[in-house]
Amino acid sequence: MKQAQLEQLLGQMTRKEKIEQLQQVTGDFFSEEQTEATGPLSGNNLTSEDLIDVGSALSLSGAKAAKKAQKEYLEKNRLGIPLLLMADIVHGYRTIFPIPLGLAASWNPELVEKTASVAAEESSVSGIHITFSPMVDLVRDPRWGRVLESTGEDPYLNKVYAKSMVEGYQGKKENALQQYGSIAACVKHFAAYGAPEGGREYNTVNMSERELRENYLPSYKAAVDAGSKLVMTSFNTVDGIPASVNKYLNRKILREEWAFDGVLISDWAAMKEAIHHGVAATEKEVAKLSIEAGVDIEMMTFCYHNELEKLIESGEVSESLLDEAVLRILTLKNELGLFENPDRFTDETLEADKVFSKEFQDIAQIAAEEAIVLLENKESVLPISENENVLFVGSHVDSSNILGTWSWKGDPTETKSVADILQSDYQNANTRILPIASAFDVTQEELETALKLAEKADKVVILTGETPDMSGEASSRSDIRLPKAQRDLIEKMTKVNAKTIAVLFNGRPLDVTGVSQQVQGLVEAWFPGTSGAKAILNILYGNKVPQGKLTMSFPRNVGQVPVYYNHFNTGRPIDENDLENKYVSKYLDVENTPLYPFGYGLSYTKFDYRGFKLVKSSDNQLKAQVTVKNTGKVAGNETVQWYVRDKVGEVVRPLKELKGFDRIFLEKGEEKVVTHEFSVEELGYVHSDLSQRYDQGEFVLMVGSNSAEVLEQNFTI
Amino acid sequence: MKQAQLEQLLGQMTRKEKIEQLQQVTGDFFSEEQTEATGPLSGNNLTSEDLIDVGSALSLSGAKAAKKAQKEYLEKNRLGIPLLLMADIVHGYRTIFPIPLGLAASWNPELVEKTASVAAEESSVSGIHITFSPMVDLVRDPRWGRVLESTGEDPYLNKVYAKSMVEGYQGKKENALQQYGSIAACVKHFAAYGAPEGGREYNTVNMSERELRENYLPSYKAAVDAGSKLVMTSFNTVDGIPASVNKYLNRKILREEWAFDGVLISDWAAMKEAIHHGVAATEKEVAKLSIEAGVDIEMMTFCYHNELEKLIESGEVSESLLDEAVLRILTLKNELGLFENPDRFTDETLEADKVFSKEFQDIAQIAAEEAIVLLENKESVLPISENENVLFVGSHVDSSNILGTWSWKGDPTETKSVADILQSDYQNANTRILPIASAFDVTQEELETALKLAEKADKVVILTGETPDMSGEASSRSDIRLPKAQRDLIEKMTKVNAKTIAVLFNGRPLDVTGVSQQVQGLVEAWFPGTSGAKAILNILYGNKVPQGKLTMSFPRNVGQVPVYYNHFNTGRPIDENDLENKYVSKYLDVENTPLYPFGYGLSYTKFDYRGFKLVKSSDNQLKAQVTVKNTGKVAGNETVQWYVRDKVGEVVRPLKELKGFDRIFLEKGEEKVVTHEFSVEELGYVHSDLSQRYDQGEFVLMVGSNSAEVLEQNFTI
Repeated sequence: MKQAQLEQLLGQMTRKEKIEQLQQVTGDFFSEEQTEATGPLSGNNLTSEDLIDVGSALSLSGAKAAKKAQKEYLEKNRLGIPLLLMADIVHGYRTIFPIPLGLAASWNPELVEKTASVAAEESSVSGIHITFSPMVDLVRDPRWGRVLESTGEDPYLNKVYAKSMVEGYQGKKENALQQYGSIAACVKHFAAYGAPEGGREYNTVNMSERELRENYLPSYKAAVDAGSKLVMTSFNTVDGIPASVNKYLNRKILREEWAFDGVLISDWAAMKEAIHHGVAATEKEVAKLSIEAGVDIEMMTFCYHNELEKLIESGEVSESLLDEAVLRILTLKNELGLFENPDRFTDETLEADKVFSKEFQDIAQIAAEEAIVLLENKESVLPISENENVLFVGSHVDSSNILGTWSWKGDPTETKSVADILQSDYQNANTRILPIASAFDVTQEELETALKLAEKADKVVILTGETPDMSGEASSRSDIRLPKAQRDLIEKMTKVNAKTIAVLFNGRPLDVTGVSQQVQGLVEAWFPGTSGAKAILNILYGNKVPQGKLTMSFPRNVGQVPVYYNHFNTGRPIDENDLENKYVSKYLDVENTPLYPFGYGLSYTKFDYRGFKLVKSSDNQLKAQVTVKNTGKVAGNETVQWYVRDKVGEVVRPLKELKGFDRIFLEKGEEKVVTHEFSVEELGYVHSDLSQRYDQGEFVLMVGSNSAEVLEQNFTI
Repeated sequence: MKQAQLEQLLGQMTRKEKIEQLQQVTGDFFSEEQTEATGPLSGNNLTSEDLIDVGSALSLSGAKAAKKAQKEYLEKNRLGIPLLLMADIVHGYRTIFPIPLGLAASWNPELVEKTASVAAEESSVSGIHITFSPMVDLVRDPRWGRVLESTGEDPYLNKVYAKSMVEGYQGKKENALQQYGSIAACVKHFAAYGAPEGGREYNTVNMSERELRENYLPSYKAAVDAGSKLVMTSFNTVDGIPASVNKYLNRKILREEWAFDGVLISDWAAMKEAIHHGVAATEKEVAKLSIEAGVDIEMMTFCYHNELEKLIESGEVSESLLDEAVLRILTLKNELGLFENPDRFTDETLEADKVFSKEFQDIAQIAAEEAIVLLENKESVLPISENENVLFVGSHVDSSNILGTWSWKGDPTETKSVADILQSDYQNANTRILPIASAFDVTQEELETALKLAEKADKVVILTGETPDMSGEASSRSDIRLPKAQRDLIEKMTKVNAKTIAVLFNGRPLDVTGVSQQVQGLVEAWFPGTSGAKAILNILYGNKVPQGKLTMSFPRNVGQVPVYYNHFNTGRPIDENDLENKYVSKYLDVENTPLYPFGYGLSYTKFDYRGFKLVKSSDNQLKAQVTVKNTGKVAGNETVQWYVRDKVGEVVRPLKELKGFDRIFLEKGEEKVVTHEFSVEELGYVHSDLSQRYDQGEFVLMVGSNSAEVLEQNFTI
């Protein structure tokens, strides 16, 4: 449909029809299936008459059900405007990939894009048009459960992943949403949802606008620039005004400065929560604030539905605000091709063929392998050889609950546990399997058996971690250690068998300070998804060489949170030559550094960096080189990381800022010259007048294997 | 001297003489005494020639030494401009009062004013002209060691204390600084030093300007409005620009908006630390930024001294900036009466008579008594009766190291320990004293003796806490519990004697969750100062009835930090009627509330609140009444606290904001009607356009004994 026709269609709509386009309800109303629901569902002020005009529905899927719902809807809808179907497809539809914080650890945007495109294909043939993803919230506080869904603490990396995910869902071609297998992306949560005070879910966010623009906004903007068709508002306030009714944020920054012309949708009930926040007394005030802020779709509350008509009638709200919102929604439906083909790619045959296909499970396995981060490998305890006698023990040994939250259609009953894969694929390996029933309680009998078996084993692998409900949305923890029963188990096991390896399943950086000292091997497996068990065993047995690197720092304890690599020097940095000086920025009882820094991850081989030089430094382009050699015993992937420090800024600058990275593969003994080019524009930052520009002066360019181990070169612009 | 004469004097000064007025050096240069030093002292670029013109010195005191220094200085100074002597007189000079966080718990501004005037008298006769106090930094994070020096988490209360301390030091009369016993106040640390990220000393501060203006700035402004002659810049950045070189903060807000015409001094080396922060490359850049920002005195670094002349010569800095700074310093010297009387009140006889006098020690005792907060008193285990057999045990039983940091001239050797006072004043009491040598290690022998004695005792009092160097400046802790040895001791003791009371010595809110469950009595004594031991025993034995109330929340654990009473509702508050709902703002593993809230403190009696009514509500004045009755068995003081909630704001409003309080004394059985009047102006807040005003609408007025237990009344403006 041409834009003129959409405008014509808008002209034919009654005011009530227009207002209902702005309403999003649960898919339950269009289906008999029960759906997952998050957040409060605060009543239903709709009649079945209203449902005929409602613009979109949430969490309805399955090709058959979706087609049926669309058909029945269109039979009743006066103007034949199709229903939009949206859902939370966050790290896979039914083929579940590792949680986003794990995917990010791959430092492989192409792979992440591929996972998004698989999720898009699976969900598009199952009836979904739009996913509430990517979440690109910058995070620094591991107490917050939803760090699971983020790509980490770095603005640059978050931008890269924002783009790769949007392009994975939507495709990159002209009219990409009309191409098979695509769905529309909805970047979230605008803005700064990842910075709740105390890491407590839904809590207050406060920061200066400069900080917001420098660190938090760029990833949303990257998604918008990559073409994300929707943006979702966040639950939090931004400087005292809830994001969902925040005109400055949504009109001034998002629409005016960034020229976003897509659909802005509230998070679940987030518009109406302005009443709880205390900036609106009534649904009417919420509706007025929200439409003025440019929120197009209201999810799961009914302020527009109940009040917008009255507000327009009384002249308090201009009808043009309603019209522009409706037109954006109609435009989105049109871009998805729904007017021409309301079923779009929804197809039972394709659904049966594609969803959870072997091909997609294999991609999930690669993703899980690349997501795994090797944190400790003392005395090369890993990899294990098949002829070693290994005890596999722990609460997560025989668990298929390893998908993590936001894996709606992911099904543990079709997910293999580590025990399953050991039994099917490692029959020749000399293993013993001992599941522990509870993550929170190890019985005396379990303990005694475990210790007895451990004594006799060559090596012990303890599969441990969080249960899935301990991280994700609404799962903030004030204590970010492993459950006590598991810490105790690890401590006892390591006393009877030094060659103990712990494999962690979790959705956040944990405080594993004690554990890291006790074990010889420590493997971060995250919630690894559908093919996670296979991936873990491939890593443990050396069929794959680990290459994942953290994108969020692991703290030494919860008391030093937030700890992140791109911090400032402060006016009193620690002087390594004068460690006795008390009057520096530090704690008395813990180091300033994290336990494992951003960018950190071991391999089964070693990479040597040398010959770092800046080969070109013109007015607007920099070119740097470093030679990386694989000096270990196996081939492996390395992620070469480039950091910059601006030594003097108009405002203080971080000690390090990631500005690029290169993934390379090196055979044993091989070396490569890695060249990286930067535009000087990338040295820019947000000044106190809020302008983005770079300063002339001295800089340091750094390259290395992680943020804490780098070679340095000074340069001047 | 008249202002015109000062200007004439300025005109006679060479440029070098003017620049040296801006220099502050250690008093060591003018004395043979060694002085306490905080922070890095980064070299000495002065010649003895320069010292003749240096404008001020730090930490030189003692009447004899000060007079000698002034005399020798004036003999050499060409124009006879006297030397200013400044020092950190924070909670007393030699008579040490409780730490400010303890003093604040008295909710007695008159008393706090009195402690400041005692400190002023003692220090003024000892040669000091200016104290670096009050510190009015709002604090929310108990990891930060310097919360010790703050009056707490509430903007209103901080304003009240800012005023009382400034008036205590300076006096309230016309030309107050010419009155005997006064010194000039220097409010610090401008601005927002109390909000370092992670509670880590000297760390980054970031918040929106609205938040800064709403919560953090009012206490500094209150001090300025009360006439504080000086303001000190802080170590931290404010939105990326170090406070000491921050023109917006110091020129725009402090001088233009607040019309501050006094002297702005940098904190120790804070100007030069702009280089570490990374906003200046050289001392020259520091000097330029600082003089433009309006910093008059540079403490302990030499950027002005080394570079200002060159900057003026080259035209990069206007000489008028130098002249205005010098004139402010000359004006301050004149206001202190130094031109007429360079010795001012410095007097060996008065020093011998006044300093650490019995009268002042008695005031310190009252202050310590009123500062003590009774946190737990299960089964009325307190007060102790003299005929009970009581074991006094612990690391702090016989310690006179109970003055806390920033007690420069306070002398533990003339401070009595609890054991001392028991032996001198409680000879008739049935007590046994068992000191534990180390706060960090209880020997097996000590433990066995303690347990044996505890078994036989009627009650056990464990005196425990932090050592003085665990709090205060540069003493941030990531673990805010008692040292493990002491937690273990308490646990073991309570198992053999249920009637155990712990008395805490500490400089911050601690996580005492475990201890609070084990003991029957819990007494927060802070670092109580010179007469602290006497005060503690008066409370324990019921000679005084406790009345202190916390001004900073005590968290349940470090993982829920920051926790403070005047927080927001969030969009998803906990619904007490639906506690099963996971999707609310909370942690999975700890309650949102603190262990002990703001305003909390028990008494040996009970106060009943009833008959709360709003008796008058005009356009600009509110009058509320409540009847408070002493329903317990002894007379006591109560602090009646008034809170307000603005139900709907243009920006979100706290659930409670303290707007006033009344201290009342009630005999056993007595009741009083407490009336409190508010101007509606006090309902104002900082809007998104940064204007301070109040909104019409609905409010809740609350009254109660602490911030968590209140009666409520709605009202409308």
